Amino acid sequence: MLNDTKQSSINVLVYGYGNVAAALVDAFSAVKSLKLSVSGRDSSKLNQFAEKHSVSIATEDEISAAEIVLIAVKDDAIQSVYQQLSATTTGILAHTSGTIGIDVFEDAACFYPLQTFNGINQPDFSKIPLLISAESAQVEAKLMSLGRLVSQTVQTIHPDAKKNLHLAAVLASNFINTLLDESEKILQKSDLSLELLNPLVHQVVENAFSLSPYKAQTGPARRHDLGVIQQHLKMLDENPKMAEIYSLLSNLIIEKYPK
Amino acid sequence: MLNDTKQSSINVLVYGYGNVAAALVDAFSAVKSLKLSVSGRDSSKLNQFAEKHSVSIATEDEISAAEIVLIAVKDDAIQSVYQQLSATTTGILAHTSGTIGIDVFEDAACFYPLQTFNGINQPDFSKIPLLISAESAQVEAKLMSLGRLVSQTVQTIHPDAKKNLHLAAVLASNFINTLLDESEKILQKSDLSLELLNPLVHQVVENAFSLSPYKAQTGPARRHDLGVIQQHLKMLDENPKMAEIYSLLSNLIIEKYPK
Repeated sequence: MLNDTKQSSINVLVYGYGNVAAALVDAFSAVKSLKLSVSGRDSSKLNQFAEKHSVSIATEDEISAAEIVLIAVKDDAIQSVYQQLSATTTGILAHTSGTIGIDVFEDAACFYPLQTFNGINQPDFSKIPLLISAESAQVEAKLMSLGRLVSQTVQTIHPDAKKNLHLAAVLASNFINTLLDESEKILQKSDLSLELLNPLVHQVVENAFSLSPYKAQTGPARRHDLGVIQQHLKMLDENPKMAEIYSLLSNLIIEKYPK
Repeated sequence: MLNDTKQSSINVLVYGYGNVAAALVDAFSAVKSLKLSVSGRDSSKLNQFAEKHSVSIATEDEISAAEIVLIAVKDDAIQSVYQQLSATTTGILAHTSGTIGIDVFEDAACFYPLQTFNGINQPDFSKIPLLISAESAQVEAKLMSLGRLVSQTVQTIHPDAKKNLHLAAVLASNFINTLLDESEKILQKSDLSLELLNPLVHQVVENAFSLSPYKAQTGPARRHDLGVIQQHLKMLDENPKMAEIYSLLSNLIIEKYPK
């Protein structure tokens, strides 16, 4: 908790019981100036979740009285949850999705934690960037204040910019993970462990963020070493999709660094 | 230095003055049981390097007397350096390349530090895996002993396995870096900083190594969200190579996680 003295008590409801909801509840539970409760469609899952995270389930009156509701449900359920909640509460309704805009419902807002949550490795919430979008400046300000209670990095974002951010995040997380999965498969052919690459990958990430990926680029494609590239493509013969990806990524690098 | 008591004094020569040579010299300089010197083709570069890293330049007699020579030069110079050194010394000649085998010269050996070196961010050498290949068991044992003086992870590797390791390392370092570069370009369109993705990328890497990349996979392709994938491909319209890479990586993920 970063900023715990502002108000008497804000009424915050987290709707959902998945991994994002869990991270939000754990982070907000540590903030004393909040009155936190949870809700969700499936009461058995909700009970289990509330018990695990030591949080109370909102009564109908408490749902009506919520000042801010964070809707942390799957993308395709967001609209129907909006419909349901907007009938019972006049509070701010903000979803937490990276892909859904604020045009999903009238007066929809977004409170997007830019992180991957798997329910096992719990990241430090104070380090997670929170991206806020809302039509009204007043709603935006309230969500910004709420965000600052739990994160060091809270900023507003235009819905169009959020689309670019989400696309960039897919490249930098889902696709990085896939490359590591493909690396592991290649290593397994020689009974080598992925763990061997751990110091390298950490250093690559550190270099990219401290120098810039453009400056940090190394490797056969960077130095136009076509012999090594050909050898690697031959080794990927049985995996034509990965060979094609290897070839395209190498061409991309070669073009970025003309001789 | 991990193990500093073994022998009176091993005579080690590092040949080269690039980033790998610098990392080796810095690591071995801290080991008191070594007599370390450096050599290289270009005497002006060598002088500069020796001064910067406080290491002495080998005399001709010292080159002849070297028990182990680590050849840290560019791949395409390795063979000629072998030719030159084998005429003047009877010591073990091991190159440090990830791509070159031990068939590059008679009795060639390999002492490969699996890390990226850019001369700016200096990684902790004790954490760097050292991969050793040699024809003779005696040479292998000597290189293993030398490696253990500076690294916690030293293992022998068959030249064929090293090829797989190097291919995996290209995916997990050069291509990860390229994805981060492409992410940065997408973010710049909305004046967003790559730094926003820093906590996410670190968490993705932590999850991949602690859970396995296969278990840690998330994202639109993992959940077969074709709507989001189509939207992203449309956003990449001006960048057809990256669109193609996006499409191939997404298909790869979709196939790995059938519904």
